[in-house]
Parts: sequence; C-alpha cells; structure tokens
Amino acid sequence: MVMATKEFSADKAKDFSDWYNKVIYAADLVDNRYNVQGFVVHKPWSMLAFRQIYRLFEAELEADGHLPALFPTVIPEENFEREKEHVEGFEPQVFWVTRAGAEDLKRHLALRPTSETAFYQMYSLWVNGKADLPLKMYQSCSVFRNEPETNPFMRGREFLWIEAHDCFAAQEEAMQQVKRDMAVCERVLSHELGLSFLFFERPAWDTFPGAETTFACDARLPDGKAFQIATTHFLGQKFAKAFGIRYSDDSGAEKFVFQTCFGIGVWRMMAAVVAVHGDNKGLMMPFSIAPVQAMAIPIAGKGVDSTRLLAKCREIKAVLEKAGIRASVDDSDKTPGYKYNYWEMKGVPIRIEVGEKELTAGTVTLARRDSRERVTVGADKVVAAVNELGFALLESMCERAANDLKSHILNVSTKKELAEALDAKNYARAFLCSTDKEGKECADFIQAETKGGKVRGTLFGGDEAVPRGAKCIHCGRPASAIVYIARQY
Amino acid sequence: MVMATKEFSADKAKDFSDWYNKVIYAADLVDNRYNVQGFVVHKPWSMLAFRQIYRLFEAELEADGHLPALFPTVIPEENFEREKEHVEGFEPQVFWVTRAGAEDLKRHLALRPTSETAFYQMYSLWVNGKADLPLKMYQSCSVFRNEPETNPFMRGREFLWIEAHDCFAAQEEAMQQVKRDMAVCERVLSHELGLSFLFFERPAWDTFPGAETTFACDARLPDGKAFQIATTHFLGQKFAKAFGIRYSDDSGAEKFVFQTCFGIGVWRMMAAVVAVHGDNKGLMMPFSIAPVQAMAIPIAGKGVDSTRLLAKCREIKAVLEKAGIRASVDDSDKTPGYKYNYWEMKGVPIRIEVGEKELTAGTVTLARRDSRERVTVGADKVVAAVNELGFALLESMCERAANDLKSHILNVSTKKELAEALDAKNYARAFLCSTDKEGKECADFIQAETKGGKVRGTLFGGDEAVPRGAKCIHCGRPASAIVYIARQY
Repeated sequence: MVMATKEFSADKAKDFSDWYNKVIYAADLVDNRYNVQGFVVHKPWSMLAFRQIYRLFEAELEADGHLPALFPTVIPEENFEREKEHVEGFEPQVFWVTRAGAEDLKRHLALRPTSETAFYQMYSLWVNGKADLPLKMYQSCSVFRNEPETNPFMRGREFLWIEAHDCFAAQEEAMQQVKRDMAVCERVLSHELGLSFLFFERPAWDTFPGAETTFACDARLPDGKAFQIATTHFLGQKFAKAFGIRYSDDSGAEKFVFQTCFGIGVWRMMAAVVAVHGDNKGLMMPFSIAPVQAMAIPIAGKGVDSTRLLAKCREIKAVLEKAGIRASVDDSDKTPGYKYNYWEMKGVPIRIEVGEKELTAGTVTLARRDSRERVTVGADKVVAAVNELGFALLESMCERAANDLKSHILNVSTKKELAEALDAKNYARAFLCSTDKEGKECADFIQAETKGGKVRGTLFGGDEAVPRGAKCIHCGRPASAIVYIARQY
Repeated sequence: MVMATKEFSADKAKDFSDWYNKVIYAADLVDNRYNVQGFVVHKPWSMLAFRQIYRLFEAELEADGHLPALFPTVIPEENFEREKEHVEGFEPQVFWVTRAGAEDLKRHLALRPTSETAFYQMYSLWVNGKADLPLKMYQSCSVFRNEPETNPFMRGREFLWIEAHDCFAAQEEAMQQVKRDMAVCERVLSHELGLSFLFFERPAWDTFPGAETTFACDARLPDGKAFQIATTHFLGQKFAKAFGIRYSDDSGAEKFVFQTCFGIGVWRMMAAVVAVHGDNKGLMMPFSIAPVQAMAIPIAGKGVDSTRLLAKCREIKAVLEKAGIRASVDDSDKTPGYKYNYWEMKGVPIRIEVGEKELTAGTVTLARRDSRERVTVGADKVVAAVNELGFALLESMCERAANDLKSHILNVSTKKELAEALDAKNYARAFLCSTDKEGKECADFIQAETKGGKVRGTLFGGDEAVPRGAKCIHCGRPASAIVYIARQY
C-alpha cells in the first residue's frame, strides 16, 4: 500500500485555496492531467474512501426504505423537455450525444446532469395503485455538467453522487421525508465524517429547477464560504403532472403523487473532509472512511531483528483485519521518520509503532493523527485500542468542526456588520423582510453590496422565531425571517 | 421487501429464449421500457445481486495487488486514435458527445466503450522507474457500445463491468497475470456463482483490437451456445509504444512495459446466473449473491397467534442479520402458498417456515430452493443451519453446472459429427490445422458450414497435446491444435 511520495508544504490558515490545491495532489487523491478539462482521474486513495462514504449512505437509505436501482446514463431530449423549469435550469450545462459510430442520431441523448426525467417516466409505469406507494429508490452514479470553472471534488464536469427519488400519496409524507433526509445527513456527516453543517430551507428564488421548495445542507469551509453538500427538494406535483405519475385512491379517483428528491453530494463531501479536517501536515481522514485506519510501522534500530519486527507488524495487521479494521504495514526501506510524515500527510488516523521496546514488552504504541499523543497497550488489546482511539479521534474532529461552525455564526443588524462578518469568514445571521419572492430584491442588493454574500435561507426544523419589531437588514420593512448569509462556493 | 407480483410460466427446456425473456421481467431484474433502445433500467433485485458480485471480484482483485481507480466516462477522440487496430475495432460502436449546452465541441468525446486509451495516457505519466512497476489498477463502471441487437444482461448499449489494467517490466510477469486472472475467474465464478466455464486462448484471428493474444472465459448457456463472460488480453507492448509507457531499467536504458487488461463481464454474469441456474419455477440465486439469502414466512392457521408468529419471524431475521446473513420476512397478507411460489420465482435460496408447530417446539423449518427438501432445526441453531444449507445448495448448483458442461463436450472427427454435436447443443472438440493466421480459412469454412460454429480456441493451461497423425477436421492437413467449437452469443 506504499505509494509514490510527494512533498507537501502549505499553510492552510494563510492561504486555504493554495493549501487545498496542494494537499489533494500530495495525498494522491486525484490527478488533473487528464486531457479533457474538468474531468479528473480518481486515484486509489480517494476511491477507497469514496467506497466507505457510499456504503454509509446506502445503508442509511436502505434502512429508510429505499431500494437501489440504476438508470441509463443517457436521457433522451424529449424527456428532458417535459418539465419546463427543469429544462431551462439545466440545458446550458448538458452534454449531448449526437452520433453513434458514423451515424447521426435522430434523437439526441443528454448525459444525465441529474435523473428526474429518467426516473419519472418509469415511475409513471410503476405507480398504479395506492399499494405501490410510497415508492422510494436511489442510485449511486456519476453525473455530468458542463461547468465553466472546475476544481477537484468541489465543482466538476463529471462528479460522484447519490440521488434518491421518492413518491408519496400525501404531501405530509413528503415533508416527513425531508426530515428523514436531514436525519440521514446528520448521522453520516456528523457522526461518521465528523462534519458540521446547517440545514436550510432555501429562499423561494433559489430552488432547484422544477421544485416547490429546496432544503439544503451547507458545510462551511475554512475560508468562510458556504459549501452545499446535499439537497432535498420537495417537488410537489409538478413532475408528477409532467410525467403522469398517478394512482387511483380508495374512491377510484385519479390522484397525482407528491415527490421528493434527495441529492447526496458524495464528491463534495470529499472536498469538505479534506478542507475541514486537514492541517499543515496534510489530510486527516475520519476513522469511518479512512482507506487505512491503522498503519503499522516497524522501528528498526541497532541490534533489532528486523525480520521479527516485520513479522510482528504483519501479525498485528492480520489481527486487526480479522476484526474488520482496515490495517496495513509500511515495509518499505524508508526511515521511520519519513514514514510517520508520509502517512500523516495521507491522513491515516492511527499509527502503530513497533520497535524493540514493544517487541520485548509484548506491547504496541499507538499515535493518533491529530494530537500525535501516544499510548502503549498490550499487543493482545490492539483491536479494542485501535477502535477506541479511532472513534475518540473522530469525536474530537466532530467537536472541533462543530465548535468551529458555531463560533463563526455572527448575529448582525446592520449592513456594515454584515460586510465585516463575511470578510472575517463568518456566516451572518440577520433579519430579512421575506424569503418569498418579494424578498429577492433585498437579497440581490445584499449580494451586490457584500461581494457575494448570499441568503442561504432559514434554518429548517430550527423554528427560529422572529422577534416582534425586527426589521429587514436591507429595506427596513418588518422582518418575517431569520436568515443566514454567507459567501459561497 | 415484498414487491409487485408478476405471473411466470415458461418452459426452459422447450424454449430457452422465451423462458429467459420472461423470467428476467417476472423476477423484476430489469425493465426494458426505457425510451432509448438498448438501454435498460436496473431494478433493485438485480442491483442488490450486482453489489455482491462487484464486492467478490473487487476483493479478489485487491488481494491480487490491484487498487481501485475511476477514470472519466469520456475519452477524447485523439486518444482513441492513437492505437490503430483499437480504433478500427471500436469506432463503429462508439457514442460521441459533440455538444455541450448550445456549444459545438471542437474535440469530440467518446463515451468509453472500454478504457485502454483513457488509462494508458495517465500510465505514461505514472510509470517512470522500475519501482513504479508492476502497476495494477481497476475500475468498476458501465461502458457504452452501440450494439445493433440487444438483450438484457447479454448485449446492451450500456452495461456493467470491471476492467483491470496492468503494466509489467517483463513479458513473463504479464503471462503470470493471465494465469492469476484465470484463477480469479475460477474462484468467483465457480465457487461463489456456481458457474462452470472453459478458459480459452483465442485463435490469432479473434483477438481484442490492439492485443497480441486474447484469453477468454466462456460459459455455456442451456441452448448450447458459448457465452463469453470475461477476457484477459496480453497487449504486449503495442499500447505501451502508442502511449509512451516506459521506464529506465537498471542500466538507464528506456524500456517499454508489457501490459495486460482484464475485462470482467459483470453484466453477462447475471445473464449466466439466470440462464444456468434457473428452472421453470423461476430464478435460482447463488447463496453468495442472493439479495435475500433466507426469507422467513409465517404460516398462519386457525387458532395460531399471528402476532406471535410474526414476532418470531422478525426475531429470526434479526438473529440472521446480526450474523451477516441477508434475511427478510414476508409479512404481507398473501397466503403462505403464494409466498412460497413468489420467493421461489425470485430465486431466494432458503425459505424459513414458522408455523404453530415450530412456535410450540422452538424450531424452524428450512427449505432449499432447488430440491425443496425441508429440514427442521432448533431455532437457536438457525444461523449455522442457514449457512450450511445455503452453501450446500450452492455446491449442488456448482456441481450440476460442472456436470452439465462436461456432458456437453463431444469429441468430433468429421464435419457431419461436428454439425450434429452443435445441433444437439454441445461444444465440439476437434483437431484444427492451426490457430495462427493460416488456420482462419478452415475456421471460416467451419463457421459457414455449421450455421455459426465458431472456433473458440485452445484450452489455456490445459496443455492438451495433439496426438501424432491427427488431421484438421476441415482441410485434412496435419493438426497442430485441439480446439473447441460452439455457436455463440
């Protein structure tokens, strides 16, 4: 598992963007030298972590009653055109297949930028009676969008995600699903990836094309910008009507279903994991998804039998693997110090040091990636010790991320305070006249005046009540919403 | 986990093709009503099985030193053109992306029909010194080919597979890899999927475009036709020279690598599993990949407390799941008989019956899918019993497939015997003058005269020696090879 070495030196606090663009290559997550702009090659170190992220979300979605499916990568033009707002929103970004071999295709085929128009024509065939509801399916796949600017894991022309598409008989059930999607985000993002986020109901002017309401999960990257990593859209009956997804109710009347779709930005989650947890030594992989959770390193020295050291390391690896822990041994001929730095740069949560002292005493020494604190335990307790330390480390990462987010939410009441809060890399919390259409003018002014400060929406499920007499930060009219404002990716 | 019911009635022995095209829809593996011809929707029952097949192969490939990667779905035209034979072989089937939004692309992008030309330009960047070798990576993905005729899991315009691409310093290492790939097929196909196959070195006139030699794994479907489900190609240095994949050897001289690529036809394996194992009751899923390995069915009756029955079923499910067995309960209001038929049609390996008798005695009754033999065991022994019966069933399936293949290989020495053997759904084993270029004329005659009997090649690793005096079945010249001839998919 030892890979090519890259040097890494960058200052995250001083220049986050430079740091990010160095660490993703140093840790060999991705190669951007593929000769189609905006399309990257995913290397093993990211693919192994993506595998775990996919498994975590897939397990959660299935526990919530979703079943996996896989729809074609191509969507015919006529499907795409069936929902007017949807096609207008996506058309400028769509890649089109127009030729097969030497033949020009009569019907052009879109590479899926998202799959509503692929799923829903089939849903219209699958939903007939009430017994077919709820219908809940998801697919794990890549999607394609011709983005003008790209950056690995942040914005790409092909990226990895999961999309879940659900149909319900009643509107309330659909709204319950939005809450369950939020809970899935909470469980995986916070508990497994150690990320912290806010879950917003977006303003009416910032919904997914074709949706009634958009709910979104925004992380905060170290430069203070909001970073959307998952969205659930309440589609109402717009697509149901466009595609004819209906059923006969108990009285025999034809009813259209209510729909939600849940986009899980697996690719962006990698960016968030890198950005939020990493430090000037390199990546810091959450224990739940680390390609290698524990790396054993033999510490050779004068008079130490290196064969026995290596055998011990391999024995520990085997014991850990049997217990379901992803373990490895660095048996290369580099120095221990080199190996420490290298695997810290790659973000391995736990290092296991095996030297003469450990060999003699029948112990191993574990070091955690963040604090580099070391603890020595009996070799027979290595499984419990690695799990304990790994999850303790993850909990610390989660706490740091939560505190970091919390400490970067500032209440502001004037536009001067707002601008200062954003310049100091914060989310600003402010009063707005409205998050319905009539509030858009204020939001547009705010965005123009604060170099991109965008109204992210109101906290969903937070029930933040607007105090009596509160006034919109822009127009001064009575406020109807507490909104969060941030610059964004 | 109870899904829509479909009726199923077909005679596999009488009309295999009709049976196949009914069972895949009855069991809800796939929906072919998507409105782009040759592109199908994969439904949950196949996706859950594909997940297991992918995991089995990925684990084997990784144990053999491969690491996972993911390359872009699109390949620029100029890459494609770098290996002349390759582009000639694939160009007629390629789907081309020519437009993004309203803009015509200057460089057209192929949807990957296979990824040699995507991988190898990056390999030329990654291979520099001997320390970078061997380089072994794979990706799990779908590929796109504009096939004129399509049939779900057999031949499609988008299908699922794995491709592994390896570089070596020495030709012998590449040939060793071919053997390891064969061993991977043996372990997964035989031991886990219960399939039987022959591993051939293809004749010189039937190699992959751009390869020196092609090795292929052919299953036999019940209609007697050969069905290629995996291939390893020895690429020699053709692509290495086209893409400049070279390294400096110990003396500082520049050397091109030797390459192999291994295509694992995951999609076709589903077809083989369906076709080989199924019967007139429906699918028979191998225990290793079954979406549900054991289905608990409550047998309600007069005076039986159905709440207690269901609670018992759910308790058994929980116990099985804790032990890593994929278990479910059919708690629908259908009759037990209906449920038996339905889950047999879906191919669930083990049925668990829980009725009053079992409830009183603290037992469960297990029935296996093939023989429907039933065995009653203590409820506390259900985990061991399910595993034991599941793997015994798989072993029976494997044995049946092996015997079936073995009994359908006939030695033939005249063309009359050959034609009869093929008409009787056999593989024919015959002498051929040569599997080098000079044998092609005979092979073409044989194919024309036997309505498609194709020379599949010589057994790889079988070391079948041609006896003295043996003559080519077609031209009568001295034979240099024992070949297998079959009609094919």
